[in-house]
Amino acid sequence: MITFENDYSCGAHPAVLQRLIETNLIPQPGYGFDTFSESAREKIRAACGCPGAEVYFLSGGTQTNAVVLASILKPWEGVIAAQTGHIHVHEAGAPEALGAKVLALPEHEGKLNPAEIRALASALLKDENVEHMVYPGAVYISHPTEWGTLYTRRELEAISAVCREFGMRLYLDGARLAYGLAARDTDVDLPLIASLCDAFYIGGTKCGALCGEAVVFPRRTPAHFVNFIKKHGALMAKGRLCGVQFDALFTDGLYFALGKQGVETAETLKTILAKHGIPCYMDTPTNQQFAIMENQRYNAIRERVPVGFWSNPDPAHTIVRFATAWYTTEEYLTELDTALG
Amino acid sequence: MITFENDYSCGAHPAVLQRLIETNLIPQPGYGFDTFSESAREKIRAACGCPGAEVYFLSGGTQTNAVVLASILKPWEGVIAAQTGHIHVHEAGAPEALGAKVLALPEHEGKLNPAEIRALASALLKDENVEHMVYPGAVYISHPTEWGTLYTRRELEAISAVCREFGMRLYLDGARLAYGLAARDTDVDLPLIASLCDAFYIGGTKCGALCGEAVVFPRRTPAHFVNFIKKHGALMAKGRLCGVQFDALFTDGLYFALGKQGVETAETLKTILAKHGIPCYMDTPTNQQFAIMENQRYNAIRERVPVGFWSNPDPAHTIVRFATAWYTTEEYLTELDTALG
Amino acid sequence: MITFENDYSCGAHPAVLQRLIETNLIPQPGYGFDTFSESAREKIRAACGCPGAEVYFLSGGTQTNAVVLASILKPWEGVIAAQTGHIHVHEAGAPEALGAKVLALPEHEGKLNPAEIRALASALLKDENVEHMVYPGAVYISHPTEWGTLYTRRELEAISAVCREFGMRLYLDGARLAYGLAARDTDVDLPLIASLCDAFYIGGTKCGALCGEAVVFPRRTPAHFVNFIKKHGALMAKGRLCGVQFDALFTDGLYFALGKQGVETAETLKTILAKHGIPCYMDTPTNQQFAIMENQRYNAIRERVPVGFWSNPDPAHTIVRFATAWYTTEEYLTELDTALG
Amino acid sequence: MITFENDYSCGAHPAVLQRLIETNLIPQPGYGFDTFSESAREKIRAACGCPGAEVYFLSGGTQTNAVVLASILKPWEGVIAAQTGHIHVHEAGAPEALGAKVLALPEHEGKLNPAEIRALASALLKDENVEHMVYPGAVYISHPTEWGTLYTRRELEAISAVCREFGMRLYLDGARLAYGLAARDTDVDLPLIASLCDAFYIGGTKCGALCGEAVVFPRRTPAHFVNFIKKHGALMAKGRLCGVQFDALFTDGLYFALGKQGVETAETLKTILAKHGIPCYMDTPTNQQFAIMENQRYNAIRERVPVGFWSNPDPAHTIVRFATAWYTTEEYLTELDTALG
Repeated sequence: MITFENDYSCGAHPAVLQRLIETNLIPQPGYGFDTFSESAREKIRAACGCPGAEVYFLSGGTQTNAVVLASILKPWEGVIAAQTGHIHVHEAGAPEALGAKVLALPEHEGKLNPAEIRALASALLKDENVEHMVYPGAVYISHPTEWGTLYTRRELEAISAVCREFGMRLYLDGARLAYGLAARDTDVDLPLIASLCDAFYIGGTKCGALCGEAVVFPRRTPAHFVNFIKKHGALMAKGRLCGVQFDALFTDGLYFALGKQGVETAETLKTILAKHGIPCYMDTPTNQQFAIMENQRYNAIRERVPVGFWSNPDPAHTIVRFATAWYTTEEYLTELDTALG
Repeated sequence: MITFENDYSCGAHPAVLQRLIETNLIPQPGYGFDTFSESAREKIRAACGCPGAEVYFLSGGTQTNAVVLASILKPWEGVIAAQTGHIHVHEAGAPEALGAKVLALPEHEGKLNPAEIRALASALLKDENVEHMVYPGAVYISHPTEWGTLYTRRELEAISAVCREFGMRLYLDGARLAYGLAARDTDVDLPLIASLCDAFYIGGTKCGALCGEAVVFPRRTPAHFVNFIKKHGALMAKGRLCGVQFDALFTDGLYFALGKQGVETAETLKTILAKHGIPCYMDTPTNQQFAIMENQRYNAIRERVPVGFWSNPDPAHTIVRFATAWYTTEEYLTELDTALG
Repeated sequence: MITFENDYSCGAHPAVLQRLIETNLIPQPGYGFDTFSESAREKIRAACGCPGAEVYFLSGGTQTNAVVLASILKPWEGVIAAQTGHIHVHEAGAPEALGAKVLALPEHEGKLNPAEIRALASALLKDENVEHMVYPGAVYISHPTEWGTLYTRRELEAISAVCREFGMRLYLDGARLAYGLAARDTDVDLPLIASLCDAFYIGGTKCGALCGEAVVFPRRTPAHFVNFIKKHGALMAKGRLCGVQFDALFTDGLYFALGKQGVETAETLKTILAKHGIPCYMDTPTNQQFAIMENQRYNAIRERVPVGFWSNPDPAHTIVRFATAWYTTEEYLTELDTALG
Repeated sequence: MITFENDYSCGAHPAVLQRLIETNLIPQPGYGFDTFSESAREKIRAACGCPGAEVYFLSGGTQTNAVVLASILKPWEGVIAAQTGHIHVHEAGAPEALGAKVLALPEHEGKLNPAEIRALASALLKDENVEHMVYPGAVYISHPTEWGTLYTRRELEAISAVCREFGMRLYLDGARLAYGLAARDTDVDLPLIASLCDAFYIGGTKCGALCGEAVVFPRRTPAHFVNFIKKHGALMAKGRLCGVQFDALFTDGLYFALGKQGVETAETLKTILAKHGIPCYMDTPTNQQFAIMENQRYNAIRERVPVGFWSNPDPAHTIVRFATAWYTTEEYLTELDTALG
């Protein structure tokens, strides 16, 4: 059985699972006060080059976005995001459920443009009716984006500079960060992210763990962040579950190796698609590839190869997402090649 | 290393972990559409004697309470709970964060009294200013309660009848349900709970799983419940994580066996406490025992045996919680005996 | 002293004030149960040709929008509005504070396009991930719009049809409705609005009253609407204050006469602007006129004539809002003419 | 026609209405930037002996409580109030709708006890699980209370001291403050309240105005308070409406004179009740009197004299509220005397 439907189709990377097995019956305090979580935090701090960072583990991405935004936004503030941003489109209004309006800007291959952020923040803050409006309190970016694209160092620096200029916090959603860090030509690494963002999360669920995301506050942690976690139902009694997994992921570079596996299989996948004359919707350097397929071909293949429906750019074609991951093997790719043949 | 600090100190029961290992690399759809979740749902329906029930898996208890309450309450309604109810005291205001006021009633060994529920509901609904007040929309009970006590069949029937009389929904928090079902003289079982409650959850985190609670709607599921789950950040991408675990827990009666282990070790624990002249604060038939210890003794023992601080009934004494669980072995009890000696 | 800054610069129309004086010391029940409110409701029902309508009085527009939206939206729904919609831009995130996401669409001279509403609703409801998204539950339109423009009967019918097709409610914000109803070539009247909308409000604050808006539910009132009003702090103890005023406004066609005064003075104002070579940003049939002025001229005039700053279309020009109202007299217009000369 | 049903049965005091008439057609900026509001603010600052205070006008009490609490509480905090507190019982869950849990304490003739506040705050803040709980962020008191009783200077000082000790803000709901300040033996005046509270409001609706409450922040105003007002739909376009009224109320001591009228008529009312052998439920020094009447007598009188039903202490008796106000004349009292005869 193979799949390209998404990047959360299998359980945990075997090394992560092995660590859960080994530690299973060692009693530990709850709520993240266990030694495994502490060890994981220490390793993440090191990987970020940020000895003073605070790290928290939550179980999923939407939850993480909601809790972090609730904690970094003031009641009068909203968050700037791309039209395609996950928080704007695919989180069922979770930020708004906590009272935070999403201030949407156009997307450019999934990315925000620094000049457009500046223009919006500037217009809002200069408006003499600003007290009647939602203040721009934070900027949300995803890296990789929902289109699998990546910001460059220069772009992140520019966005971070705009944030500092207007007193906005910069928050990076790293649900698929492993694949972003492993991309071939990227000049963005964890220490850079830690130096430019006020908060970000290192995705576990889509990058080798059963569940779990690691929230990093490189400098200043919002007051009473644990209370925010608890209040939003996101405090795990067995905090060890995430701690153990992230401890394994950040041992011997496993997290980065898993990212590499996802990216390299995506490169091969691109070659296979090209070989079969299937164009990509956009050039994407990470583990998600968006192919434009004739409907007939799409319908034929999806019986044998689970893929993700994205949209219909015109009545005759479908944009299809092929996602690779740490568990995508040679066999997966060979079968796809055969299926397309 | 031993502990009586709580009932979530270890990982998963080995049989649960084994199932995670076996299924780890079998690709499955996300968000609970996997075959393991479906199998678990089927087994839970059978155990509840409720073939038409809908079952959902969430990762933790506070989250589950918040999501279920948000979905079963109308905007003008609140929820009746005991002063000691977990939602009233220990969830950081999570129900209120979703706009649901907790209408607190006195507790009787952790339990609500049906007559007091009726009096409150009746007073509110007869008040000519009721539109200025919070309507009683649901009753929250925990079983076992926060004091480890249990409702009887007769008590549950009486509360359920009051709920029906006033159009309120009955919701049961079963964080420790395994231990409640396994108590020696209880006449409450899963089919009874399913027949009397509008919603309840079968606790996994404290009863053998790494994480996860199974929400059961025996009859009518709230409209768009999945949207509520997603909106509150509680929809797991890898729904299989809970599905696999609950499938294991409800195979060959494991869930009930784990409950029995917790209750039997608690019985032995009571004997040990009695032998050492330590009285219990209340007679409790489940896995939590609340002992009254002189402060000196408490301070001496907690170095060797992790226990839970509860409160100080007077300056010289401490109420201490001893929690057993599926992982509490003979060795734990022997060491406690020695430590108290 | 004159002003064109906005349409809420003076107190109440003298006939409205007179009615407050006459009724001042007649004791009445609170919360809208007074006879004046009842009389006003009856007159509004008649004016709407809707004997079965329910009518409620709230004190201001943002509040009214928030309370009505909270009551007509389900927890999983959001509201479609134009990018320029008051609820999207100038209500400080009030809908989101109640958990309701605004789903923004492009504006066309302040108006929504029925085809674009259909496309959005259709795309959302057909999406297989719709449970991860915000459902389209209602459409918000303002009439007149924020640009002072008006929907035609045909446009309203088309939007209403889309709403019925997708089970969405149609809500009309009539903050300046008097001026809309009095426009020269409009084919939209109160009975039409009542027949097409599920909820709307007849603005008082900007149309002759000291404060107050009349919410009309032509057919079905949301359950426990009074509780929504109270919960959002919008239930006036002295409901008579709004009741008396709306009773006066809907006696002998006063409301319509005031609208006519605002529109006719706006027509004269347009002539004056044209005479002085000042173009309008768009052709607007109601009481708000948006003029494009050279910055120098704008700066010169605003010392003598208070007007509203709108935006800078380019560095050398300013869009300026001139608002007329029921209190705009000949004298106002003459002085403006002089000031521009 | 007479009434004792409540203290908001008539319109505005004639002097207040007169001021509305005089200022009606003088154009002014909106949103409280008018000269009348500024004048009123200045007079209130003087009456409070607090030249640096900030003053805001909102239209009603429930709204004011919600907006102030939202602005002074942090997201992890709740508010301590008496079981009988208006925010806890009669505001339809408005604080909770903004996410603020009410932490209820026993009432003592409607009042909070400083020692009980200290015990609760201390217990919460010392609890090692405090991050799982709602922090005590503010104390809500009403003065007069819902039972018409008053705090003494000493009691207010003690509560204020507890607040300072635990970093809680003290907020006073003065819906009926005029009657509290005018009570015979009170040692509490506006400067004292301003010196002890972090926020309070001077009630207008029940003390001579058509609507309106004046929020006073004697020292530090919450950041972006206007945005809170707007976001909660409480910013009046015609801020002048409240400004003019409070300007009149604080001219020549009118506010205090109205309070005196209410209190003196209440004293006479007490005499009349006593003369007719009707006991009071509690000794109350302000404008609300709670009488214990046999049901038969209550039913007989309420046809002729509107009064407020409160509760049934036993099946044969009713507690009835008689409210006097600035509009209660000799005639009202004479008719009551006759009706009881």
